[in-house]
Amino acid sequence: MPAAPTVTGRVLSLLGAFTADEPELTLTQLSRLTGMPMSTVHRLTGELVAWGALERAKRGPFRIGLRLWEVAALAPRSLGLRERAMPFLEDLVDATRQNVQLAVLDGYEAVYVERLSARGAVGVVSRVGGRLPLHATGVGQVLLAHAPPEVQEQVLSMPLPALTARTIVEPRALRRVLADVRRSGVAVCDGQVELRSLSVAAPVRGSRGDVVAALSIVVPSDEHAAASYVPVVRAAARGISRALGAAPARPADHGGR
Amino acid sequence: MPAAPTVTGRVLSLLGAFTADEPELTLTQLSRLTGMPMSTVHRLTGELVAWGALERAKRGPFRIGLRLWEVAALAPRSLGLRERAMPFLEDLVDATRQNVQLAVLDGYEAVYVERLSARGAVGVVSRVGGRLPLHATGVGQVLLAHAPPEVQEQVLSMPLPALTARTIVEPRALRRVLADVRRSGVAVCDGQVELRSLSVAAPVRGSRGDVVAALSIVVPSDEHAAASYVPVVRAAARGISRALGAAPARPADHGGR
Repeated sequence: MPAAPTVTGRVLSLLGAFTADEPELTLTQLSRLTGMPMSTVHRLTGELVAWGALERAKRGPFRIGLRLWEVAALAPRSLGLRERAMPFLEDLVDATRQNVQLAVLDGYEAVYVERLSARGAVGVVSRVGGRLPLHATGVGQVLLAHAPPEVQEQVLSMPLPALTARTIVEPRALRRVLADVRRSGVAVCDGQVELRSLSVAAPVRGSRGDVVAALSIVVPSDEHAAASYVPVVRAAARGISRALGAAPARPADHGGR
Repeated sequence: MPAAPTVTGRVLSLLGAFTADEPELTLTQLSRLTGMPMSTVHRLTGELVAWGALERAKRGPFRIGLRLWEVAALAPRSLGLRERAMPFLEDLVDATRQNVQLAVLDGYEAVYVERLSARGAVGVVSRVGGRLPLHATGVGQVLLAHAPPEVQEQVLSMPLPALTARTIVEPRALRRVLADVRRSGVAVCDGQVELRSLSVAAPVRGSRGDVVAALSIVVPSDEHAAASYVPVVRAAARGISRALGAAPARPADHGGR
C-alpha cells in the first residue's frame, strides 16, 4: 500500500490498520500495512500512545487505546442510538430468549452497533462493530429497502456474494424482496447468512421519520414459526423509534408506501 | 488553548474536543476549543470526514463518525472485555433486577465500559464511556485497592472531592477502606456517589491474575440487605475472570492478601 500523502492520512491509516482479525500489531506490521517507513511509524505511534489512541504493554504489540474508545463512544449512531434502544433490546431478549441485533447502514454494508443473546440461543456471526453485506441479512435488507435510490442501484449493480446456497444473489430477485420489505414493513431472511438460522427484521425511524437503523431477532431456522416473531420485532422497533422521537405510527410500517 | 505543535497532535486535539456534554461541534467551536485557525480546522476536518472519523449532516455541526467507533471497538479493554463479560452481566441483571456496571482503571479514574439496567432499577449517574472518581465508587475502590502503589499514593495525595455528604474525602479513612477491600474481596459503597444508592463491587482478574476490571451492582440505599448482594456479585466477577482465562480460585478474593 502506498503511504498516505498527508500526516492526517498517515495517522488514520495507522488506526485503520487494526482489524478484528488483527487487533494487535507490531511496528514492523504497521510499517508493512501502511507502506510507511519504520521511523515514521515509530514517531506517529509514539504520539498516539501518549494521547491514548493506542496502547502498548511494555515492548509488546500496539492495540487500540481506551481513550480513543471513549471519544468514539460519542458517535451518535453507535452508543447514542444504543442507549435509547437498550431497554427494548433487553425486553425482546427476555421475552424470546433469542438473539437480538441492532444495525445501521454505512456505505454498502450493515454495521452492527449492538447484539444481545440469551444463553442457549442459536449462534450468530455478527459482532458488535462488525459488518455484514446488505443483501444477505434481515437488517441489511431493511436498511437497503429504505436506503437512497443511488445506494440501492449501486448494491444491485455489484456482485452479490452467496454466503449460503440460499443467499439471494440475483439482482431481480433482490429487487422483489426489497419491494416486499417496504410493503410488509419487515424482512424475513431464512438461511441466507447461515443455513441454521433465520432473522426477522424491522426498521427503526429517527425524529425526521427516516429509517436510521434496523432491529432483528435471530432464531434457529427449524423454527417454523418465523411469522410469530413479526409482531414482537415490529413492536420493539416502534418502541425504539418512539424513544428516538419518531412520530408514533407510519403506514409504511404495516403495508403500502 | 495553544494549538498542538504537530499535525498528529492537532488531529487528536480535534477528536478530543468532543465530549458527552458537547457531542456536536461547529467549525468555529472546534477552532476555539483547539486554538487552531479556522483554515487549519477546515482542512483537517475535511480529511477526518472523508475517512469517517467525523460525520457531518449537510452544513451542520461535526460529530464523531461511525468508522472511528468501529476501529475503537477493537480496544481490548472495551468491547473485548465486554463480549466475555456480557452473559454474566445479563444473568446478574436477570437475577437481581438492578443495575450492573463494569469499569476499568484509566489514569486516576474509573471508566465505565458497560452498564445494564433492569426496568425500574434505581437511577445511576454512570454512562458507558464515562468516568467517575476512584475514591467515591464501588468499582473505583476495587480498582484503586488493586492498583499499582504509585497510583494509590497519587490518588491519596490529591484532593478527594465530596460527591455527597457521605463520600470518603479523608486519605487515612480511604486507606483503611482500601485495605478492607483487599481483605474482604468486595467494596460496599453506600451513598457516596448519590445518597439514594449503594453499590457492591468485586474485582475481575485477567489471565495473569491481575485485576483488569471491577464489577458492581447498584441498588437503592434503603435496601438494608447490601450484604445479600455480596455472594452474587463475587460469583459473577469470578465467572468473568474465568472467561478471561484467570485461574479458578484466589485467596485474595475471599480474605487475606
